[in-house]
Amino acid sequence: MKTLIVLTLSAACVVPAFSQGVGYTDTPQIRGQQWKVHDKERPNPPTVTPGATFSNGAPPPSDAVWLFNGKDFSHWTQGGGAPKWKLENGYMEVVGKSGNIATKDEFGDAQVHLEFATPSKVEGESQGRGNSGVFFHGQFEVQVLDSHNNKTYADGQAGALYGQWPPLVNAIRPPGEWNTYDIVFEAPRFDAAGKLTKPGYITAFLNGVCVQNRQELNGPTNHKATDPYKAYSGKGNLSLQDHGNPTRFRNIWLRPLGEHN
Amino acid sequence: MKTLIVLTLSAACVVPAFSQGVGYTDTPQIRGQQWKVHDKERPNPPTVTPGATFSNGAPPPSDAVWLFNGKDFSHWTQGGGAPKWKLENGYMEVVGKSGNIATKDEFGDAQVHLEFATPSKVEGESQGRGNSGVFFHGQFEVQVLDSHNNKTYADGQAGALYGQWPPLVNAIRPPGEWNTYDIVFEAPRFDAAGKLTKPGYITAFLNGVCVQNRQELNGPTNHKATDPYKAYSGKGNLSLQDHGNPTRFRNIWLRPLGEHN
Amino acid sequence: MKTLIVLTLSAACVVPAFSQGVGYTDTPQIRGQQWKVHDKERPNPPTVTPGATFSNGAPPPSDAVWLFNGKDFSHWTQGGGAPKWKLENGYMEVVGKSGNIATKDEFGDAQVHLEFATPSKVEGESQGRGNSGVFFHGQFEVQVLDSHNNKTYADGQAGALYGQWPPLVNAIRPPGEWNTYDIVFEAPRFDAAGKLTKPGYITAFLNGVCVQNRQELNGPTNHKATDPYKAYSGKGNLSLQDHGNPTRFRNIWLRPLGEHN
Amino acid sequence: MKTLIVLTLSAACVVPAFSQGVGYTDTPQIRGQQWKVHDKERPNPPTVTPGATFSNGAPPPSDAVWLFNGKDFSHWTQGGGAPKWKLENGYMEVVGKSGNIATKDEFGDAQVHLEFATPSKVEGESQGRGNSGVFFHGQFEVQVLDSHNNKTYADGQAGALYGQWPPLVNAIRPPGEWNTYDIVFEAPRFDAAGKLTKPGYITAFLNGVCVQNRQELNGPTNHKATDPYKAYSGKGNLSLQDHGNPTRFRNIWLRPLGEHN
Repeated sequence: MKTLIVLTLSAACVVPAFSQGVGYTDTPQIRGQQWKVHDKERPNPPTVTPGATFSNGAPPPSDAVWLFNGKDFSHWTQGGGAPKWKLENGYMEVVGKSGNIATKDEFGDAQVHLEFATPSKVEGESQGRGNSGVFFHGQFEVQVLDSHNNKTYADGQAGALYGQWPPLVNAIRPPGEWNTYDIVFEAPRFDAAGKLTKPGYITAFLNGVCVQNRQELNGPTNHKATDPYKAYSGKGNLSLQDHGNPTRFRNIWLRPLGEHN
Repeated sequence: MKTLIVLTLSAACVVPAFSQGVGYTDTPQIRGQQWKVHDKERPNPPTVTPGATFSNGAPPPSDAVWLFNGKDFSHWTQGGGAPKWKLENGYMEVVGKSGNIATKDEFGDAQVHLEFATPSKVEGESQGRGNSGVFFHGQFEVQVLDSHNNKTYADGQAGALYGQWPPLVNAIRPPGEWNTYDIVFEAPRFDAAGKLTKPGYITAFLNGVCVQNRQELNGPTNHKATDPYKAYSGKGNLSLQDHGNPTRFRNIWLRPLGEHN
Repeated sequence: MKTLIVLTLSAACVVPAFSQGVGYTDTPQIRGQQWKVHDKERPNPPTVTPGATFSNGAPPPSDAVWLFNGKDFSHWTQGGGAPKWKLENGYMEVVGKSGNIATKDEFGDAQVHLEFATPSKVEGESQGRGNSGVFFHGQFEVQVLDSHNNKTYADGQAGALYGQWPPLVNAIRPPGEWNTYDIVFEAPRFDAAGKLTKPGYITAFLNGVCVQNRQELNGPTNHKATDPYKAYSGKGNLSLQDHGNPTRFRNIWLRPLGEHN
Repeated sequence: MKTLIVLTLSAACVVPAFSQGVGYTDTPQIRGQQWKVHDKERPNPPTVTPGATFSNGAPPPSDAVWLFNGKDFSHWTQGGGAPKWKLENGYMEVVGKSGNIATKDEFGDAQVHLEFATPSKVEGESQGRGNSGVFFHGQFEVQVLDSHNNKTYADGQAGALYGQWPPLVNAIRPPGEWNTYDIVFEAPRFDAAGKLTKPGYITAFLNGVCVQNRQELNGPTNHKATDPYKAYSGKGNLSLQDHGNPTRFRNIWLRPLGEHN
């Protein structure tokens, strides 16, 4: 007799989801989903403790651009000038109210590696704690947040495509520890008439745990709103958000994503 | 004035593709593609040197099953009995002609991490060198091959979905070095009548380099053939191929992939 | 003509030492040194920023005992019973006033790997901030402290042999980040009459930076005191200090150190 | 009742030493030891399987000189000119009969990190297999050898201070895999009259396993000979040996070792 054991997500290894009572009820419906933006009722994802390492400190492959190696801001700009964010100990740190910083270079489809640490000093709640973000082409945000023991709406968790898709699981490390993001971004495509021919997609591993699996973007991400796609070149920069919290980033590299023969 | 630099795959960082004259001309057309199976004319992917580490030795997340931790074959079976592959130095090694080995457990959609090394002693050519494979549900193979300075057909390279999709780039390490695979597998779905409702998909990072980006499987992978999907439960095991070469594997873990709320 | 460049510790890469005005003036002289215990005038070591990884998450070699793998306290005891420290997310955390914890096993000379994180929430000053310690045989302490931007006496820095030897450099990571210790401990030896025949020695790498290079211990470490060696078996446990701050530890393994043929 | 378990090196976790019948009987006695140089009768060290990672790919600390980052030979020279060794895939590889290569810079006491791989293709026996070496100041060699399943004399194993001290254990990886060396070198000191005032010492971790614990050097290392110390400045270069086998090296960094306050 053959005995089969089928593995499924079980209570043994994940913390069950719960409705956390944080979020909104008066926001618009997300296109194609049963939920509203930042829906108060949307269940939070289960929590997973990532392994002690994964891609932490991973050196760039030979075809990558090392956008930040801890030494200088040469690949970055802030409001047209040099970044005012702090540079110390091999990382950069958000300086509140100085604004977002962005790469000087533009790119299309890309694989991105970066590392971030939410502030050691736990301050604020929900979206006010350790908030920052990784923006592709200035429009599509993969959320950065201190989601460790921090109640907030599901589509605002670290690993979320902000306001659209919660992460599959909550794999954030505790405050102050370094997290890794390995992200594949596919830009949307538009025809000559400006009509969307292919939406944008994002795959994301947070600390080696798949939190988005080529998830389709419903349009640019936004706060309390659902924006439609607007035609553009399909090229753009990578930017990091100043949301007022001293989040840190290090070891950022990007490789343009080619196509199959 | 604002100067934009657009990054694209350039000759500076990748080795240009070439037609290698290895492969077939008498095989069937791959459904939906311009190429035949193992097409002699299909260009090989560019070569990329991966960074020195990525997920090498990565410990499993808390919701993973550690299928192989280098100590025993307790999660594995071979032909209904205990595996006859070698177990030494924290890895397992293929013993030629003993057959494939497979997990005792079955699973559906999953994220898998594993590490492999092609044989230190370079022997054979093309598909005869360092050949093995990672099979999902006994049907869908992510190719393992010593593709380092080894001419073979494009859809048989390491990182290929065998006979269907070449890897986006050739990111294999030299013989004897440990490679890492981080794979997301989505099983195909069938309706009650056995009709395919959603095909299978595979995302794969080889040594931290994206080689398949949620690529749709055209059906089960095969040699010199294109097989149609056949309805099944959507559950199955993970198996490793005995192709006669002493390939090594270590640190294999799998986490069931949940769905979005 | 041949030009030689001799590398020395220069201001370019290290922060110059300074006298920090924290410490004592009324403590006893350290045997064989020009300084008093916790000497207020002893210069602090230069600061070095460690690389992003080193032995972080390093799996144990085959001859090691994995004293703590993040899952249970099976190798540990506290006051004769089970440890009351917190166990979560793959690490243990000091519970203040519960006391030190110690291994059940005893050992002689040993190589030890462990990882620790000082509290994310920065509280207290000098020795009151992120204080803990790694004790060999209950007598010899390698200091654990949040020495990041924290003035304290030189022989009380992280990496110090407490009260005896400051670290060669200050290589601590910021609060909340994981640090690694790779330590070689040689126990003192005594003859049948209880006379010291060989002192104890400690080599320590903090985050891959050599902070103690087989440094001779002057005797058991202590606070504001210099204790003489007292004969014992040369065997003892490994213990971790409860100094009231919620320091975290993970991935602790120990391998007995053999002798040369 | 309190039960103590004392951990010692046991047959359970190490392969017992054996006399391998390879070596010499007509060589001079090593000063201060019971053995002759490359003594045929000296027992080989036990074998240990290192963990899958340790300092593999470790980025340099801020006070290190990155002597080789895989991109160029700018820090190296060979016979007064540019190195003729191969440079590819982020590593350098010995080109037989081209000679040793050495750093342009000189240094005194130092901590060195480097990675090496013995040839994938196993050729030759004993000292003829995967032989190379790391030389400090052109005089003191830490042995590089394919010691995996390769009988040779004890003081010629990978991790040996060649011709003087076998490694404490044999922790080499199989052919073709990357090994890491983390070494602390203390140069000998001489007085104005050229008399030795302090011998040289070497501490070495091979793949994270302590193989030399501040071992005193008896003088310069040599083949079948025991050389006395000869006074010199205490400064010198780091060099890598061409012993005819295509050994590979990568990621080499060095930090000058300061002294205790």
